[in-house]
Amino acid sequence: MKIAILGGTGDIGEGLALRLAADTRHRIRIGSRDAEKAETKAEEYTTELESRGNDAVVEGFENATAAAEAKVVVLAVPPYHVGDTVEAVADVLEAGDVLVSPATGMKRDDDGFHYHKPGAGSVTRIVADAAPEGVDVVGAFHNLAAARLANLDADLGIDTLVIGDDEDAKRTVTDVAEGIEGLRALDAGGIANAPEIEALTPLLINVANNNDRLHDLGVRFE
Amino acid sequence: MKIAILGGTGDIGEGLALRLAADTRHRIRIGSRDAEKAETKAEEYTTELESRGNDAVVEGFENATAAAEAKVVVLAVPPYHVGDTVEAVADVLEAGDVLVSPATGMKRDDDGFHYHKPGAGSVTRIVADAAPEGVDVVGAFHNLAAARLANLDADLGIDTLVIGDDEDAKRTVTDVAEGIEGLRALDAGGIANAPEIEALTPLLINVANNNDRLHDLGVRFE
Repeated sequence: MKIAILGGTGDIGEGLALRLAADTRHRIRIGSRDAEKAETKAEEYTTELESRGNDAVVEGFENATAAAEAKVVVLAVPPYHVGDTVEAVADVLEAGDVLVSPATGMKRDDDGFHYHKPGAGSVTRIVADAAPEGVDVVGAFHNLAAARLANLDADLGIDTLVIGDDEDAKRTVTDVAEGIEGLRALDAGGIANAPEIEALTPLLINVANNNDRLHDLGVRFE
Repeated sequence: MKIAILGGTGDIGEGLALRLAADTRHRIRIGSRDAEKAETKAEEYTTELESRGNDAVVEGFENATAAAEAKVVVLAVPPYHVGDTVEAVADVLEAGDVLVSPATGMKRDDDGFHYHKPGAGSVTRIVADAAPEGVDVVGAFHNLAAARLANLDADLGIDTLVIGDDEDAKRTVTDVAEGIEGLRALDAGGIANAPEIEALTPLLINVANNNDRLHDLGVRFE
């Protein structure tokens, strides 16, 4: 299957692109507003994979081109670019395609990081509201530390939570997620349950920042 | 050390009382608005411990009597009783005592459980606002499944997050928590970081309710 990772030149996009290319047989297309930047990064990822004896090829395109042939399109962009990015690819999405939302809104103060809940209720809800008719939206990959994901030598052994209002779309994304070695995908219900998942990301940062021996934390439901 | 568990006849209170009595040398005093109910429950807990070859004695009192001699006072009551309960024991608390807040506000709809953030910002903040001068407030034990905690045959292997604005009080509660076998206490910063911790409780319920093989979930930061 072809998977587009929009914002695939950013930190969480890099991690997802590398892990999916390394561990699965999906064809990974990274997208950026700047096609040249996407191509350069895609080459870097491909070179890194090659250095590890993996012949997967990551390709880079402008966002809409990346999304055009993909069945699953991951919005690995900051929360304030989610709406624009969906709009930029809306014309090339087809009924049955799945938009995946991993972003969360955060603000920082002297105490730490806090969930900045969007007026719509959650970032995943913003995506659902912006998605074209017939395109399903699934929230996933919210609570993964970007640096750990992008370091293919780092073990995961953690969970990601999957939410969505269409069971087939959730199943598709669950299968994609579980293709990543060491990642378990758990069902957390419908999109209405997104805020508590998005709020877990700042909490992971706070826990890492307050405990010397912990960093790049993920979570495991036991 | 003497530890009072107010609301110690309720489900999370029962779990904390049993685990602390079973695994530590602290003297556990459970409190209730109804002294007789507290005494009856305390006898039940003591009998259960005895049946497991443990000679710890749990005592039961009316809330203020339970709190009077305790250094650490856990508010294991529903969030809407937190204010009243602090008020009921305020006169017997002394400077240097520590109030512990494990409660979280939740509401349920067709999709699942959701964090019901109090106007004050968090339940832990409500406690801090109500606490008498010189009494420190620490948030802990929010994300523990009551039934699992109360089942002494169940392994934990999970984490609890500790928050507070006084480092000594946090250290005291961290030591108490880590006395429970299989429970690791992690520092999550100041009370301002409470909302994301309290929001994790409804998420754990949603994940358990959407995955057949998971129940009474806790969380492990990895």
